[in-house]
Amino acid sequence: MTEFDLIREIIPGLASNDQVVVGAGDDCAVLDMGDPQSLTLFKTDAVVQGVHFEVSTEAERVGHKALARCLSDIAAMAGTPVAAVVTLGLPLNFDPKYILGVYAGINALARRFGVAVVGGETTRNEGGIIISVSLLGSIPRGRLLLRSHAKVGDAIFVTGKLGGSLSGKHLDFEPRLAEGRWLAENFKIHALMDISDGLAGDLPHILRASLVGADLLSDAIPISREAQLRAKAGSAAKPPLLAALTDGEDFELLFTLPSRLAVSVSDAWRIQFPELNLSCVGRVTSLPGLRLKSKMGTKPMPQHGYDHFAQSE
Amino acid sequence: MTEFDLIREIIPGLASNDQVVVGAGDDCAVLDMGDPQSLTLFKTDAVVQGVHFEVSTEAERVGHKALARCLSDIAAMAGTPVAAVVTLGLPLNFDPKYILGVYAGINALARRFGVAVVGGETTRNEGGIIISVSLLGSIPRGRLLLRSHAKVGDAIFVTGKLGGSLSGKHLDFEPRLAEGRWLAENFKIHALMDISDGLAGDLPHILRASLVGADLLSDAIPISREAQLRAKAGSAAKPPLLAALTDGEDFELLFTLPSRLAVSVSDAWRIQFPELNLSCVGRVTSLPGLRLKSKMGTKPMPQHGYDHFAQSE
Repeated sequence: MTEFDLIREIIPGLASNDQVVVGAGDDCAVLDMGDPQSLTLFKTDAVVQGVHFEVSTEAERVGHKALARCLSDIAAMAGTPVAAVVTLGLPLNFDPKYILGVYAGINALARRFGVAVVGGETTRNEGGIIISVSLLGSIPRGRLLLRSHAKVGDAIFVTGKLGGSLSGKHLDFEPRLAEGRWLAENFKIHALMDISDGLAGDLPHILRASLVGADLLSDAIPISREAQLRAKAGSAAKPPLLAALTDGEDFELLFTLPSRLAVSVSDAWRIQFPELNLSCVGRVTSLPGLRLKSKMGTKPMPQHGYDHFAQSE
Repeated sequence: MTEFDLIREIIPGLASNDQVVVGAGDDCAVLDMGDPQSLTLFKTDAVVQGVHFEVSTEAERVGHKALARCLSDIAAMAGTPVAAVVTLGLPLNFDPKYILGVYAGINALARRFGVAVVGGETTRNEGGIIISVSLLGSIPRGRLLLRSHAKVGDAIFVTGKLGGSLSGKHLDFEPRLAEGRWLAENFKIHALMDISDGLAGDLPHILRASLVGADLLSDAIPISREAQLRAKAGSAAKPPLLAALTDGEDFELLFTLPSRLAVSVSDAWRIQFPELNLSCVGRVTSLPGLRLKSKMGTKPMPQHGYDHFAQSE
């Protein structure tokens, strides 16, 4: 049984109540806490020593990553983050200086995005450091951007460049909060999520939830410099295009919108975010499944999700 | 550096914002999410294999405990729980049936208290299973029951009987949600918290936050049958009174209120909660520190907090 099988078995049995607007399965849960103007976003995520960072990773970058992963999920709902709590699992002989460094990284990022860190829990964990962060945020009522609303004919966009995140970006990435909100406020976005398991791993979440398929254009995939360098560096590495499609931890935004808006969103983006790439990488189709189109023809893509228990990076 | 020293060093540096009503340091954080009627409670807690439960512990009881600990903190704010998210850290060769059992325990308790489970995260954790739960709840605006509001002369009460929780209660305890709300709705409670590190470990949190002291009455401490049985069972066990004062994981409520209300709260409690003990165990004093009064005289009590890294149960 894989991680994904387990999650699929767990989700249908989860307890619910009438304050749940969106339960498990999207980037964040959405709750109605009674405010007439806004809905509450709720998300949890964790980083684990040996999986998401190494013993040698600088503490501040570990803290940054732990909070940034949750912030990326708030960005994927075009939301505004409000407050975080942190659970630390620590081995018996932990180094207090390292933990203070982790918190320095968390706090520095929190301050930049106006997030309060309002509590935590410290417990023992024999296997190494684990940092679990939960985050509250908010969105205006009536602005739900879910994975399930992609429409046939939509243009598919990604921010930034993809692949090779292990070279360093996975520790230092910028959650796309301003970008997510700007998109939602200015364009009729149909589906929005963040890319954490690779474009080819995550786009199928939108496709399945929306009961559609997609064609990706091989030449349009924005490949990061790091994915290219890694491919040159060693024969064991993936070819750059495959890295851009399947490497984990890009933490860029992936969205679809009506194709008639494709040019205007690209033009407005260049003015608003001149430093950050925006690429139209394909189109939503009525034919289910995900395909890659290139000069060589069209090939179906198997799903390449990152399973924490089955693969090692 | 102990766990408590580390936390003391971390708290003053935490990022904040103007939506924070109460930050780290009380049972829950309190946030203003914009609802004109209510404030939002936010809490995180974790249970770890080998610390809070054993490999042999039934999965459903582990799930129950993981959620119940957070619910107890909502009870300690006289709040109503709304929604939880769960982070699971699992060793490589985890047993999917066990995890489904953990979720069954979480969901059963969640349903009983109207809590939705709205998401989660699964990740690898070499050392064993760790379950981190974060919980949202709400309280009416203007009903903040903090640790810092105890007043000189207050009567000190505890619910239930104390000590010996390791015999089983630590896995199966009932969070005192109805009790906490009833107290807040019907009496002028000054300070409220839940007991997780023993009465003698937790009462000092109220005393320090309120800049007061307390006398506990040795004969009035409600000692659980389990604490008595454990003392009889082996010479290594604590005497029953010491167990009632210092054993961890009672998860009962501890509160103070004006002493003129002591009789009326006791009388009304017996009618409202006939199955659950309520004991007046002492009085708040202007003299700082915590003392135990008995026929043998008055003795100062050193603080007996449970440090996850320094002691073993």
